[in-house]
Amino acid sequence: MPASDLYAVADFCLIPMGTGESSVAEHIAECQRILEKSGLTFKMHGYGTNLEGPWSEVSKAIHDCHAAVHAKGAPRVATDIRIGTRVDRDTPVGDGNNHKVKRVEEILARDRAAVS
Amino acid sequence: MPASDLYAVADFCLIPMGTGESSVAEHIAECQRILEKSGLTFKMHGYGTNLEGPWSEVSKAIHDCHAAVHAKGAPRVATDIRIGTRVDRDTPVGDGNNHKVKRVEEILARDRAAVS
Amino acid sequence: MPASDLYAVADFCLIPMGTGESSVAEHIAECQRILEKSGLTFKMHGYGTNLEGPWSEVSKAIHDCHAAVHAKGAPRVATDIRIGTRVDRDTPVGDGNNHKVKRVEEILARDRAAVS
Amino acid sequence: MPASDLYAVADFCLIPMGTGESSVAEHIAECQRILEKSGLTFKMHGYGTNLEGPWSEVSKAIHDCHAAVHAKGAPRVATDIRIGTRVDRDTPVGDGNNHKVKRVEEILARDRAAVS
Repeated sequence: MPASDLYAVADFCLIPMGTGESSVAEHIAECQRILEKSGLTFKMHGYGTNLEGPWSEVSKAIHDCHAAVHAKGAPRVATDIRIGTRVDRDTPVGDGNNHKVKRVEEILARDRAAVS
Repeated sequence: MPASDLYAVADFCLIPMGTGESSVAEHIAECQRILEKSGLTFKMHGYGTNLEGPWSEVSKAIHDCHAAVHAKGAPRVATDIRIGTRVDRDTPVGDGNNHKVKRVEEILARDRAAVS
Repeated sequence: MPASDLYAVADFCLIPMGTGESSVAEHIAECQRILEKSGLTFKMHGYGTNLEGPWSEVSKAIHDCHAAVHAKGAPRVATDIRIGTRVDRDTPVGDGNNHKVKRVEEILARDRAAVS
Repeated sequence: MPASDLYAVADFCLIPMGTGESSVAEHIAECQRILEKSGLTFKMHGYGTNLEGPWSEVSKAIHDCHAAVHAKGAPRVATDIRIGTRVDRDTPVGDGNNHKVKRVEEILARDRAAVS
């Protein structure tokens, strides 16, 4: 195996379980504080948070979100992670998720240019 | 069962398979065009697209993305969907995903206010 | 778009939120009862349930699981769905998920035959 | 944060991208070989593989699957991971996913006993 720590472009959605409250905003805010400390590039959206960096660091940051949400009182935590790696070209560090959005937006901008 | 078509706040990440190209931007752009026609509220991010509306319409929109990506040449398509419903309060139509982000941002803004 | 209701091979993991209990077994059992009534092919595993059939029926079955889990008292429900379609060959109805496992097991069986 | 490496009960579905083949069985078989070497408890199903152990080891095993699938020629790999932790009780090591299935099956068996 060539790479010992692949660069990972990821997204995760963490759910505290067994809290007795349907709101999760306080727990998600706690995760944002953890991510801030991680030094990784991240960006929250309506159903999760984009996150990227070396695989082991991305994984550790999400682990630490679990630990922090447990510490805030959630007995159980479940997360859905989407994670991608590529070896055909270098991912611009910290710009992997952003770059994907820009590529799609360029294509859609061509549509509009062609129409007008 | 009370609701015949629950309001769904969702997010999906679609992957064309067997295309022989590692880039998926053209396929994702096609999905954005399909979503535009659906009339639903949606917003692309770095690892998927937020989408919300009546469950059956959200599901049909994602189905139609699959059909469109097949029509563009992908023999196989795999999607990860996160989908949530709630009955404790009404979700503001078209603002479910957005509302969740705002709630977390308000909490984080309080942090900063407390520090300064 | 060629297909009005693509055949879908899927898997889903449903999480009741805001219940105040960390155990979800009663809720998952309720989902199994709903799936039984759906007439679709399904099989529970340790972190979700395989499910397949026409896209609209798969979607409706998962929707009805949400409605049933709400009816049992969960104010909020979040589900992760993996769903795949293909147009390069027909999926044997009710055997799509099973077929994928068999193909991998055949390959691994060849490993063992080659070793012995 | 109390735990430096939470015990994780997980499931993942890996998709090779840009291979030009719609079949993924050879790649999934390669992942099964990697998991075999990891020493972790795992079990393939129709739309993914159950996997459990210390968080860092689960993460490393999935990372190594990515590296192996890249080494077999896939320029890009995307994985969906579901991962759960709990601190309300100890998870029986290697039996976390299995235990969840057994609990649901016990409840469903009571249904059948009540009917007959």
